[in-house]
Formats: sequence, structure tokens, C-alpha cells
Amino acid sequence: MSDAELLLVFDSKVDRSGIDGWTQHFDSTGTTATTYRLGAVDVMVAQGPATLLPAPEDLPRPTHTVRASGGFRLGRRELVPSGTRVSIGSAVIGDGDIAVFAGPCAVENREQMLSTANAVAGHGAVGLRGGAFKPRTTPYSFQGLKWAGLELLAEAREETGLPILTEVVDPRHVDRMAEVTDAFQIGTRNMQNFSLLSEVGRTGMPVVLKRGFGCSVEELLTAGEYILAEGNDQLVLCERGIRTFEGSTRFTLDLSAVALLKRRTHVPVMVDPSHSLGVPELIEPLTLAAVAAGADALLIDVHVQPQQALCDGKQALLPADFGRIMGRLDSLALGLGRRLGIGPAADYSQIHDVLTGDVV
Amino acid sequence: MSDAELLLVFDSKVDRSGIDGWTQHFDSTGTTATTYRLGAVDVMVAQGPATLLPAPEDLPRPTHTVRASGGFRLGRRELVPSGTRVSIGSAVIGDGDIAVFAGPCAVENREQMLSTANAVAGHGAVGLRGGAFKPRTTPYSFQGLKWAGLELLAEAREETGLPILTEVVDPRHVDRMAEVTDAFQIGTRNMQNFSLLSEVGRTGMPVVLKRGFGCSVEELLTAGEYILAEGNDQLVLCERGIRTFEGSTRFTLDLSAVALLKRRTHVPVMVDPSHSLGVPELIEPLTLAAVAAGADALLIDVHVQPQQALCDGKQALLPADFGRIMGRLDSLALGLGRRLGIGPAADYSQIHDVLTGDVV
Amino acid sequence: MSDAELLLVFDSKVDRSGIDGWTQHFDSTGTTATTYRLGAVDVMVAQGPATLLPAPEDLPRPTHTVRASGGFRLGRRELVPSGTRVSIGSAVIGDGDIAVFAGPCAVENREQMLSTANAVAGHGAVGLRGGAFKPRTTPYSFQGLKWAGLELLAEAREETGLPILTEVVDPRHVDRMAEVTDAFQIGTRNMQNFSLLSEVGRTGMPVVLKRGFGCSVEELLTAGEYILAEGNDQLVLCERGIRTFEGSTRFTLDLSAVALLKRRTHVPVMVDPSHSLGVPELIEPLTLAAVAAGADALLIDVHVQPQQALCDGKQALLPADFGRIMGRLDSLALGLGRRLGIGPAADYSQIHDVLTGDVV
Amino acid sequence: MSDAELLLVFDSKVDRSGIDGWTQHFDSTGTTATTYRLGAVDVMVAQGPATLLPAPEDLPRPTHTVRASGGFRLGRRELVPSGTRVSIGSAVIGDGDIAVFAGPCAVENREQMLSTANAVAGHGAVGLRGGAFKPRTTPYSFQGLKWAGLELLAEAREETGLPILTEVVDPRHVDRMAEVTDAFQIGTRNMQNFSLLSEVGRTGMPVVLKRGFGCSVEELLTAGEYILAEGNDQLVLCERGIRTFEGSTRFTLDLSAVALLKRRTHVPVMVDPSHSLGVPELIEPLTLAAVAAGADALLIDVHVQPQQALCDGKQALLPADFGRIMGRLDSLALGLGRRLGIGPAADYSQIHDVLTGDVV
Repeated sequence: MSDAELLLVFDSKVDRSGIDGWTQHFDSTGTTATTYRLGAVDVMVAQGPATLLPAPEDLPRPTHTVRASGGFRLGRRELVPSGTRVSIGSAVIGDGDIAVFAGPCAVENREQMLSTANAVAGHGAVGLRGGAFKPRTTPYSFQGLKWAGLELLAEAREETGLPILTEVVDPRHVDRMAEVTDAFQIGTRNMQNFSLLSEVGRTGMPVVLKRGFGCSVEELLTAGEYILAEGNDQLVLCERGIRTFEGSTRFTLDLSAVALLKRRTHVPVMVDPSHSLGVPELIEPLTLAAVAAGADALLIDVHVQPQQALCDGKQALLPADFGRIMGRLDSLALGLGRRLGIGPAADYSQIHDVLTGDVV
Repeated sequence: MSDAELLLVFDSKVDRSGIDGWTQHFDSTGTTATTYRLGAVDVMVAQGPATLLPAPEDLPRPTHTVRASGGFRLGRRELVPSGTRVSIGSAVIGDGDIAVFAGPCAVENREQMLSTANAVAGHGAVGLRGGAFKPRTTPYSFQGLKWAGLELLAEAREETGLPILTEVVDPRHVDRMAEVTDAFQIGTRNMQNFSLLSEVGRTGMPVVLKRGFGCSVEELLTAGEYILAEGNDQLVLCERGIRTFEGSTRFTLDLSAVALLKRRTHVPVMVDPSHSLGVPELIEPLTLAAVAAGADALLIDVHVQPQQALCDGKQALLPADFGRIMGRLDSLALGLGRRLGIGPAADYSQIHDVLTGDVV
Repeated sequence: MSDAELLLVFDSKVDRSGIDGWTQHFDSTGTTATTYRLGAVDVMVAQGPATLLPAPEDLPRPTHTVRASGGFRLGRRELVPSGTRVSIGSAVIGDGDIAVFAGPCAVENREQMLSTANAVAGHGAVGLRGGAFKPRTTPYSFQGLKWAGLELLAEAREETGLPILTEVVDPRHVDRMAEVTDAFQIGTRNMQNFSLLSEVGRTGMPVVLKRGFGCSVEELLTAGEYILAEGNDQLVLCERGIRTFEGSTRFTLDLSAVALLKRRTHVPVMVDPSHSLGVPELIEPLTLAAVAAGADALLIDVHVQPQQALCDGKQALLPADFGRIMGRLDSLALGLGRRLGIGPAADYSQIHDVLTGDVV
Repeated sequence: MSDAELLLVFDSKVDRSGIDGWTQHFDSTGTTATTYRLGAVDVMVAQGPATLLPAPEDLPRPTHTVRASGGFRLGRRELVPSGTRVSIGSAVIGDGDIAVFAGPCAVENREQMLSTANAVAGHGAVGLRGGAFKPRTTPYSFQGLKWAGLELLAEAREETGLPILTEVVDPRHVDRMAEVTDAFQIGTRNMQNFSLLSEVGRTGMPVVLKRGFGCSVEELLTAGEYILAEGNDQLVLCERGIRTFEGSTRFTLDLSAVALLKRRTHVPVMVDPSHSLGVPELIEPLTLAAVAAGADALLIDVHVQPQQALCDGKQALLPADFGRIMGRLDSLALGLGRRLGIGPAADYSQIHDVLTGDVV
């Protein structure tokens, strides 16, 4: 039993001195204990002999305790049974509504960025995605507009009111990027770039952590611990497809993982169907399926001129197709007893009209 | 272009002599042509020089023509754009409604079979599943009740009115089994047992063909051709999970494949979440996701006493859990503009009540 | 411990009455016991309370006993620690020498078959492969010459003296095929076609069982039990590549599986690099690697005119390339303390000359 | 043809002005051209109209030209047909000899490091491996001794004369680490951490780039371009197993990839059987197989007390087992017409004795 950990959850009624009392208790019994701040609660992780014994009566009681083992600790559903809400600017992920982030794969130029941003805002997206730094499989491909791209994202936010989510690829960029973006995205190739994870964790800002295409659900959960262990609970895990032998789609979207994550962790779950599939006509059915499987949020590639995109254009949706999906999501939400979150720039009745005309 | 085929579709207005005229035309130009009966239409597959030239004016016009290549021919969506309906006894798959087949993995004894059959019938299933011949990875495991199990399935059909679907594992069993069952199931391990496929194809009876867990979507489609090429269009393709590196579920359910199949073939698509997942608590969300991705039908393991099942019990649902899923499917169907098919033995209002109480 | 089995191995000094004594002992203590003939030994598999207790003194002692669990029993290395030898005509697999079977993927016509057979015989192959019945992914592809192909194989055997190995795809073909072939091959798509496995097992003839491309090492071992449980120990397991995300070769040859199989089972192990790779220039290095990993035998596609092959020609070697590989194998064998087996029709000194000229 | 590139290789007889002439020629014809220094040659990569036309007569002729497409350019075998040699201290990889690097997975303490180093040196290793910075799947595991670990590696080098190879995980560590280590290792989780690749590339020092366990051969080759494009040809690509459904080994060692890499790139190839397998008894056969498939170098985990290792101990070999493998490699090398490279601290005759006694 030497590997097992005891997690003690303390709500805000327990003050510093109460926590210190527990720490001293564990210290005095040869038990290691570390305390982490996780949103509104403190979580103490203890390992050692005292975890198996009754605790002194005079210590403040934890809200609840959880036994764990292995490296998955702070993300466990039992710590925050109602689930954690992550706020990215005005958007909320994890409150039960379906939160849709959309935008181009890569920021290419002012015209493309602003027109796409306006389009997705008009169709009800709650947040804007766009890559300024692009990790490409070869050094000879377009690597993104970098800092200039970030400025264009900020301008698009100014114009639409949508918060922005953008990828970070280098720990040396984190501080400068934090001044502009509303949330960090860690791409699939960097899921186990632990230096980068710790660095974004330290900012306390929201982080969308994409699953490595060769990584297991367990590894996604333990990678998330690198961010949570910095005292940052503003984490979203994102399923984006895994590598399999099946070649008719770019990756195999693992929706079982979505359902599993919802049961194992309090951290909300996002799905990126665009990068998984690489086939635009499949995005609508898989978006619906992702939500039916329990996804809190979606990340969808939209481009005003997909055929001219500098990066992954073939999988991007036209704004009109994105609008139709929003209508179908609104209808699906009803069938699931949920609601579609609608961003600040959209008119809900219009989205609902799409539904009324298109589906029923 | 020597590998390309031209598919000519003729509706019932074109009689035998018209088809014969085309055959003679192709014969006389060094072009091979074979005609297949596919439900209400005739499909002529031609390969050779004449497929690239205008045809004589006096031949009856095909309804439409399709160019193809590779081994996927008779299943192409373009041949039957509205989709094929498969009738298994009173149940219909492919008419837009959600058709749920349920029952135990293996037929174990009279008591288990009848009580499970009554339970799933009461909750609205349109068909009954149950394995009499079980292909097991080792010869030392329970191999099913065999012919006696088939008799129990027939008795359960008698009692509930539900049509039965059962697995066939040996071409030498096909004729005898055809006298009892309403439809054949080909299991994942036999998807490429081509002798068996041809044999069940020849019966003209409905066949549910499960995807091999190591096989691609393309291979599932071409395996289906072994049945269609026998003039049997009563085929259902079933996604049941593929082998990947992810170990938290038994297999990885490939819902992208479901959406893809719906676009590529006129043959209806079933999903078996039970065998894919091996985790009962994930069956509900993945069942919903499968339908949202476009599945026509579902195949769900239900057992009155899962913990005592002789085969794969750990993945079976209790009847009450199955009932709750039926309620959620009814609600989901509304959100998708579809309907849940309800079998002869169930009271729809009861299912709807579950929904009203449970979800909204 | 209810699932655990005790395997008792008896050598030929123990006669029928001794075995019967053990059977009665187990029967009288509520323990199930079944006896299998495995080459020169009898193996009794017992499950139940008596397996945990001392046995009566008057029963003949087993050579050794092995505790097992799960479905892998008769193939366990511990039962025949020195390994089983399989005889296919004049060829022996499992005696330490490297046994090479070669020939065309499919028998196409007399000229092709005889010229290829003569070529591989001249280069030292110990056996001839050739497919008369071909399981193809689509019904519209060449399915083999069937019984006529089998006759051509027999003729090639007559001419070269090489024993023949050919694939069986239907349990209804087994008896007729047994009259002609020296050994059965079960293809990758039929590894879990258990009806077929039992049927070939019953003949007592040698069987080469290929690993399913979606199947685990464990499943290959338990599939082999279907043949061993018929009292047939003339089994060879064949690694031929598995399905993975890597697309630069047709399958991923799993040589770790070869090393693992050699440690877990007494059944000899063959490797088929040709079907795994689909890239002729990789066959030489992977053939060498397979032997270095411990393979007892090899199965190599050779065709006199690969570019005109009706089936999988692009992976076949020209006879001259096959000859060069035989030379390199002869040299490699020295480095491994083994020998290259040389068939009846070849002149060893010639193969050795290739080596001397080509490598050193 | 707009995506195609023309690669022009110039040997040292062509001086700066010759290169400049070509650059001007391409500039004047709307063709982009970039020149890279790759060991002893200059490679100019040109894209545009002039690549399809005859070049002016007065320009110096390239040694040879190669047409390419996609992102794989500077690593192409055709550029350096004889293969590139990489020098790590006194060790050479790519000269035909088998170069073995060995040592503990993680540097743990002075005693463990020095005793392991002495052991592998005594058995003939040409280089020493050891992790000071360890990327672990969870933040709660031992992360390595970091800079103190690097000092212990340097001390072990001092004592044994073996050059050291150690992993780098953060671009901010590169310069400081370059002052101590002889070569950088990029781990499997960082294969597509492009910021890190560029940073180590810039040092000009040798880099061992491990294949991502979810990445294709093609992606490994294009990741290598990030280092080559910095003008650094001291690159070694390392196969270490990929993720598949097969669970009996930790990863599936892809030796087809080794053979393929040897044909596609001039960069030498290393194999790490230890991390791939996770089963010590399989390391010997797979090490032999890796060399037979064409590997230039090996990376093997050795630990004086595997059962007490802080990291991945269960896969480490004892020094004596490592010594036996060296003997078998020496013998195998003979059979392949190669030689086992022997480090400065070992006595070759002793290794040969092992062979003589153990194998033949």
C-alpha cells in the first residue's frame, strides 16, 4: 500500500492554520503531504503511514477524502463532483451548456482573420480560435505569422467581442503571449512537452490541452496534472483523434474517451472534430455525436475560403456550413436536456430559425 | 482506365429483354458485363472499351449510371440514393427510425432467455439478439448451447413477438439455421470468412455483418459485396469497435466510420456499443453518440443477471438501465428530427414517461 | 484459484491404465480432467480441488506438472521444453535449422508454377508454397485456380521433390485437400475461424497458422489450442505483420512477437516477411532480422515474373534475389550458431558460394 | 509541379563564388533557392521555374542533382549515398561497425552511475547513456537529478573514457548542457517539439532523435529536417517502438522502419530495444534482430541493481547479461560481414571469448 495516496479536500471554511495543523500532523508521523489550491478548495495529498490511521480529533475535518494511486490525483472527479467551470473571457466551459469555439486553423492575414471572426461570431460561437504559431511536421512549411498573428487575433477580439484561444509552442513565449491571449492551447504534438505544460500552468490562465494522437486517456489525465499541480484549475482536456490503422479519416475520433473523461475527471472536455477527420462532410455528424457523448465544448475550423487556406484548409468549413451545424446543435441540445451556449455577437432567434427550417 | 467499371442501374420498367440487349451490346464489343438483382433494381456491371463510348439508341435507358473502381460496387450509395430498407421479421432497419435490437450475448438457459427477452420487449426493442453458437478465443470456454440455444431463441420469439438475430459461424450450419432464425449475424472474427459470407448471401435472408476489429471501412464495404453479389440486398453493416493502442475500453468505437458508411453506401448501418466498450457505464453516452453520428440501428447486450453471465457479462446492461437508455433515445430522436422505433410488445407512452421524468 | 488448471505431463512409460488411474482419482474428488495426446506425451488438464492436494502414492508420477490459467494450455513451452519438431514431407521445422518455404502467392498456371518451383528448389528451399484457394477482399478479384491449382502444386512437388504447403479456406474442403497437400496453411483472415481450425486439427496433418493482422500474440496462442486440442501437435505459428498506423509498409512485422512466442510455446515459429512488407527491397533485411529474432522458418513469395502476377505480385522476389537471400541466410546462420536447412533439390556448395562471393 | 524541389549537391571543389552564381541565376528567374551546409557538401534547394530548364553553361556543375517533393529534403540518401558518419566523442556511428551505447535509464547517484559506467565500458560499449532530466508522464514521479546528474555523467566519462549521451527536454537548457554533454538525445515525447529541435540543431553538436511512439517514419524523417536545416548533419535517428494494440510488449519495435530508413536517408540509424520491449529476456533476440535489419547503433539500458532503479528498472539488463549480448553481437557481426565496435576501455579478446564459449 506504499504507493497509495490519500487526498483530503478542504473547503474555504478551513483556514491556513487548519491546513498547517494537518501538515504538522503528517510531518510528525513520517508521512509526506503537499497542499494544492484547486479553485475554491484546498487539496492535501498525503502518502505514508498516517494515511491509514485515524486523524487527531482536533484537526478540522476535510469535506471528503479520496484514496488514489498512480499519478492521477488533482483531476479526479471525486474532488469536485459537480465539475469545474473554466472561464475564457466571457465564455464558460463546463456549466452544462455547449460551448463552441471556432475560427481558422492559422491566422493568415487581416482580411481572412476578421472576416472569419465576424462570420463565426454571427453564427453564435462563444470563442475564437486561430493559430499564430503553427507546429508543422516540416521546417519548410508555413510556420504561422507568429507575434503579428497574435495581434490580428487581438484585433478580431476587439471587433467581435469573442475571447481568443491560441496555441503556444515554446516555454519562452508564455509570458509575452499571456499579455494578449485569453487562453492557451497546447497542441497534440506537445501534450507531453512537460516544460511547456508547467510554464503555462504557472500563469493561472485557462489552458486547453489537446490529447497526443499517440497517447492514452490515462496519459492525457496525468499530463493535465502538470497544470493542476501549479494550482491552476482552469484546464480543459481536448479529444482530437488518435492514430489507428484506419485510413479513411486522418485520425480516429475517440468518443469513448470523451464519455470516460467525463466520468473520471472534474475538468471539462472539448472535442475537435476538424483536425480528427480531415473530411468536411463528416464534421456535422461527428460534432453532434461528440455532444451526445458528453462533450462540454467544441473546437471547429472555419475559413472563409478553405481552398486557399495556408494550413489544413481541406478540413475547414465554410461559414454557412458552420451556421447549419449551430442550428442542428441547438436542436440536439433540446433532445439532450442541454442548451447551446450563444456568444455575445449572435442573435439566438436566427440560429433557432435555421433549426426550424432545416431539420424539423 | 482498364480497371474502371461502369455500373448501370435499371428500374423495374426495364424487362429481361432490355437487359439482354445490353448484355449482347457489351458482348459484341469485348466488354464484360454481369447483372445483379439488388432489391427492386437490376445493376449491370460492365468493364471494357464500350463503357467509354455512347450506347446504341435503341437500348432502354438506365435510371442512372455510376463509374466505380476497386472492389466496391453494389453497395455504393449512388445505386440506391434513398437507402435500402432491411426487414427482419416485423422490424425494419433503414427507414429513418432508430431500430434497437437487444438481448443476451449468449443464450444460456430457458429462464435467462425468456426473462431477458420479455424485459427488452417491454422496454421497446424491435428485435431480439442472442448467441447460440459462440466463437470463443479458446476452445476451453463455453461455446454456446448450439442448436438447443436456437430453439430457445425461437421460443422467446413466440412469447414476445420479436424477430430474432443470431450468429452463424460455419457454412455447414447455414441451411439448418435459416429454418429458424429471422436474420444471420456474422461476427467480427468472421468478417473476412468469405465462404461463410457467400453461403449466407445465397439464402436471401437478412444479414448483419460486423466489422472485423482489425479491418478498415473499405474492407467492410468490400466484404459486404460478397453478400450483395449473391443478389441479396438485405444487408446491414455493423460497427463494433476496432483495435487500437487505447486500453481503457476493450475496443475503440469508430463513429467516424458510421458517418462515412452512411455517405458511401445505401446499406443501413448498425452500432454495437456493448462489445466495443466493455464498460457498462459508457454504453448510454456512446449509444446516444452512435445515433447522433447517423446509425440506423443499435445492438445492445442486456442480461437479467449480468454478474452470472457465462459470456461477456461484465458489459451487459440490466433491464432497468436498458429502459432508461430507451427513454433517452426517444428524447434524442426528437432533437435529431427522427423517431425511436418501438417493437410490438411495448407501450410507447411508458417509454416516453421515462423520458419525461428522467431527462427533461 | 477456481480458474487455475494443473497440467500433468506423462511420457510414454506411463500406459493407459496409469492414465486411467489418474482420471478416476480426479473424478472421485470433484475435479474435471481431460487427457490430450501431444506428440510423444500425454497431457492431462485438471481443474478442481484435487489439483491443490497431494496425489495418491500409487499413481504413476508425471514427468512434470505445470500450473496454468486462461485458455493457453497445450502450447505452453514447459510441456515440451526442447520444442516440438513439425515434419512437412521431407522438411522439418523446429530442429534448430532455418527452414525456408518459398513459391508464388497464387498458383496461376502450369508454366508459372513449375518454373517458380524449380527456381526455389534450385536455391535451396525446403518446401514449396502456393495458393490454390485465395481469400480476396472483394468477390470480383481472382479467387485462385482452386482444385486445378492444387493439382499443379502436386505436379510441382513431383518434379522438385519439395513438399507443398497451401491455404485452406473452407471446412468443407479439408478432407479432399488432405489427400493432396503436405500441410495446411490457415490465412490471417481465418485465424479465428474456429470451425476451420478444429477441422484441420482433426486431420492430424501439419498446420501453419498465420497470425490475424488484428490479433494479439495471446490470441494466436489460444487459436493454436483449437488444433492442439484435437491431439495434433504438428502446428507452426506464423507472424506476418499486424495493422498499425504506420503506412510505409503494408503491415508492421512484429519481431518482438517472434522472440516472445519462442519463449512461451514449444510450437515452432515461422515468419512471412513478404506479405507483411509489400516492398521487395525490404524483404532481405527483415528476413535476416526474423531469423536473428529466433524464427525457425520463413515463408517467402517468389515469382518468375512478379510484374505479371495475378495476386500480390509487387511483393514477390525474383528467383535471383531469392538466391541471394539464401546465401546471406547461410552466412547469418553461422553468426548465430545455427544452420540453413537445404532442400533435396539444391547443391549446398552453390549457396555457400553466393555467400562467399557476395558478403564476405 | 509547383511543389517539387530540385536539390543540387556541390562538393568542396565548388567555392563561395560558384554557389553565389547559382543563387543569382535562380533569383533572376523567379526561383527560390536556399543553401545548406551538410558536412562536406553544400546543398542548394531550389523551387520554381528554373528547376525545369537547362542551367547556364558557365556555372560550376553540381556533383549530382535530386528531385524531391514534400518536406523531406536534406536527409535524402541520394545526397550522401555512402552515408553520413556521426562522431560522438571517440565513438563513430555510421561507419559500418555496430556502435553500442549503454548505461542506466536515469542517473540516480554517484555510486550507481560510476559502477554502471565501468561495467558497460568493460564490456565494450563505445558510449555511455544516462538521463539527468527525465520527462515523466506524471509530475509526481522522480524527474531526474537534473544538473547534478549531468555532473555525475561527466565524472563517469572522466573515469571510463566513454563519451556521454543525455536527454534534453527544454530549449532553455540547451546552451548550458552543451558545455558538458557529448551529444543530445531528444526523447520520444519531444520528437515533434520543433522549438527544441531547432535549438539543438543550432549547436552543431550530435543529436540522437528518437521516433515519437505515435509518429510515422515519414514524420521522423521530416522532424530530422529541423536539425539538418540548421546546417547540422550530426544527426542519428532512433527507432524505439510504436504504439499498437499488442500489449505483450510495451511498444512494438518496428524493425521494418530501420530497414526503410537505411534506404531512404544518409543519416545513421540507432535502435533502443530496452524502452520498446519492457521485458528484459526479449532484449537479446531483438538486439540481434535490429542489427540484422541494418541498425548502425544500439542504445541499451543497463543497471547494476535493476530492481532498485528509480525509473524503468524492470527493463534494464544486469551487466553480465549485457556482456553476453556483446559476445553474441560480435559473432552476429561476422555473419553479416560487419564488425562490433569496441570502446576504449574494453579488451576485445575477452568479448570474443564470451562468444567462443557461449555460442559456437
